[in-house]
Amino acid sequence: MSKFIPSISRLIDEFARLPGVGKKSAQRLAFHIINMDQSQAVAFAEAILDVKRKVKYCEKCFNITDQDICDICTDNKRDTHLICVVETPRDLIAIENTKEFHGYYHVLHGAISPMEGIGPNDIKIKELIIRLQNDETSEIIIATNPSIEGEATAMYISKLLKGTDISVTRLAHGIPVGGDLEYADEVTLAKAIEGRRTL
Amino acid sequence: MSKFIPSISRLIDEFARLPGVGKKSAQRLAFHIINMDQSQAVAFAEAILDVKRKVKYCEKCFNITDQDICDICTDNKRDTHLICVVETPRDLIAIENTKEFHGYYHVLHGAISPMEGIGPNDIKIKELIIRLQNDETSEIIIATNPSIEGEATAMYISKLLKGTDISVTRLAHGIPVGGDLEYADEVTLAKAIEGRRTL
Repeated sequence: MSKFIPSISRLIDEFARLPGVGKKSAQRLAFHIINMDQSQAVAFAEAILDVKRKVKYCEKCFNITDQDICDICTDNKRDTHLICVVETPRDLIAIENTKEFHGYYHVLHGAISPMEGIGPNDIKIKELIIRLQNDETSEIIIATNPSIEGEATAMYISKLLKGTDISVTRLAHGIPVGGDLEYADEVTLAKAIEGRRTL
Repeated sequence: MSKFIPSISRLIDEFARLPGVGKKSAQRLAFHIINMDQSQAVAFAEAILDVKRKVKYCEKCFNITDQDICDICTDNKRDTHLICVVETPRDLIAIENTKEFHGYYHVLHGAISPMEGIGPNDIKIKELIIRLQNDETSEIIIATNPSIEGEATAMYISKLLKGTDISVTRLAHGIPVGGDLEYADEVTLAKAIEGRRTL
């Protein structure tokens, strides 16, 4: 059925494997590459290889970095009492972009999910606990996703730290700012009512 | 503002340059690459380079191919009286997929667009005319897009061939006006071929 020559089929398949890229989009992207200048295509391929060569995990917080310890962990102007625990480096960036958090981070690289066979030992929980023994942390903000897996992970960490003098907090649930109340789902709305605050 | 290390920023920029890929999607794709196996990332980069190394234009119809003459032009079971003129190789593939057309093709690689400074000499019209002098073509089906540029190109070719014994036809309406040929479904496109009219 396919009228593509092998090298094009292969590139389409590679694009189609990317998240959120369907067959038609993959074709469009492959033909975009075909129409690119040689130098642009080389730059693109090189960028892919380069990122794989250089990117590694911070030995302390497991954020992505091109050094042994990431820029955030080496920044000594931050609040050493606070650690924000996230599932992925992209969640870390989302929080950094708020400019509201000035502590350190810990990236779990996933969440506990019995359905997918991901247990506490498959993510960086052990590393968090070890780190807390040397750190002067007084509060852990668990910013895992508001999903079943994220909640399970939050509960697990909170139980592990029960009895220590580290307080464990969780991001507030509620209606997104600028969002429309009537479009909020019922669970979010219920959480928003439950977490209501005095004005 | 950006919290990304240079190699990641660069890959995000490369992805964001692709058509239909916004800043957020580019980030998602870049992080997907970071989480890929080394071998998968190498395969992806290699597919990009490979397509640029191998893909060239057919010397006869200007379809993309990895040989001097493409598979369609070397297929002698096709109807030598018919040439279907398209703007891009992707349009050619869309028509091939209908399985309703059994002639040959000619890929213009664009359409006449005074607005963008694209004149008749900037696309493969001259090559089409030269080709017709040697060919036994009796009908040209102009399958350029139903856009201003596509129509202008169709009119231009039709005027060039006025007075010759080659009949010039245009895809029938059925393709939504203002739509994009490559996104038309196969039934619509087949109807359009079936209902083609003399210009």
